[in-house]
Amino acid sequence: MAGRKRASYERVVEKTASIGKAAVGLFRAKGYLETSMQDISKACRMSKGGIYHYFAAKDRILFFVLSGYMDRILEGLENELFAIAGPEERIRFVIRRHIRLYTRYQAEAKTLLHDANCLPKKYFNVVADKERKYYRIVSGVLDEFFGRTMPKKELTAATFLLFGMCNWIYSWYDPKGPVTPDDLAEMIYRMFMEGCGSIKNVHHPSR
Amino acid sequence: MAGRKRASYERVVEKTASIGKAAVGLFRAKGYLETSMQDISKACRMSKGGIYHYFAAKDRILFFVLSGYMDRILEGLENELFAIAGPEERIRFVIRRHIRLYTRYQAEAKTLLHDANCLPKKYFNVVADKERKYYRIVSGVLDEFFGRTMPKKELTAATFLLFGMCNWIYSWYDPKGPVTPDDLAEMIYRMFMEGCGSIKNVHHPSR
Repeated sequence: MAGRKRASYERVVEKTASIGKAAVGLFRAKGYLETSMQDISKACRMSKGGIYHYFAAKDRILFFVLSGYMDRILEGLENELFAIAGPEERIRFVIRRHIRLYTRYQAEAKTLLHDANCLPKKYFNVVADKERKYYRIVSGVLDEFFGRTMPKKELTAATFLLFGMCNWIYSWYDPKGPVTPDDLAEMIYRMFMEGCGSIKNVHHPSR
Repeated sequence: MAGRKRASYERVVEKTASIGKAAVGLFRAKGYLETSMQDISKACRMSKGGIYHYFAAKDRILFFVLSGYMDRILEGLENELFAIAGPEERIRFVIRRHIRLYTRYQAEAKTLLHDANCLPKKYFNVVADKERKYYRIVSGVLDEFFGRTMPKKELTAATFLLFGMCNWIYSWYDPKGPVTPDDLAEMIYRMFMEGCGSIKNVHHPSR
């Protein structure tokens, strides 16, 4: 009995994940509004009826994908930070982790940026709460680095300028290009800590 | 005769501008795909027939708006840069100009980010060419600052990290909030030149 229950639970997890993965690939390629349940059905090789068994509507799939992406971003983050010594290393870690997750889940990241506002208010708020939680954690790491002396408006700006450098990469960065995700993370870290000159110096070992 | 021609030309300029302004406000608020010609007609108090007199289709309005925004960004930029002494001052100028234009044309900037991919290929390419031209100018300013010694991949990263800080402000920055556009530009300039510590020091005159 327990075996059958587990099998059924695992089946739900597996099916919803596979629908979500197919859907977010389409959302990324053609946008949420332009993607139909028919498209999703084709992409995940499941009947529309089969999909409706797991998701009552297309917006539930969008919510499942975006909320799940934010969960992955938040999962274990506070514990991991707790285990890292020194505020500078925590900043470096947060940036590297952000870039790694971004490059692994590019479709989810781009959909969050472009289509989160297609969620019904109630679902949107759940995702926005998770984004705020992430913001607070990152901002807390910076606040600690600044010795808790940075005025609020400058701390807010510093946090969002860092997010800007990390998130804008969707418009230009190719993880398969000449700069690896970890190299990019190090460039962002150095830019954030010391400004653009230190990116240059990465490749000027004479300094 | 010349008088009538001028009046007619001016009427076209005025009407297309007013349709564009009404449309981009809607694109920003509800997205390009969700905005109908009916919505635009209501917003600019003109009949749909009247609008079709100036624009053959909704995507022409989108093109008019985005291409016009990029023209404003490019207009006079190279001459203005030519007149500024010193590579650091040119960087500061480019950032301040970018933030001022962004805060003045927020609807256009957000629509460029979210809906440019709704343009037919041919029109998209025209806008993308203008974006590339802007990229090249800004990248050239940085290249000069680095004494033309920055390797290409680092120069590309530095340019796009700067764009990231400038463009991501759409997600958090309120020009009517406690930080003025010029203050924000100065924060970005300092972050870019010297890293986050220099944002802090703006408000720590003791250092």
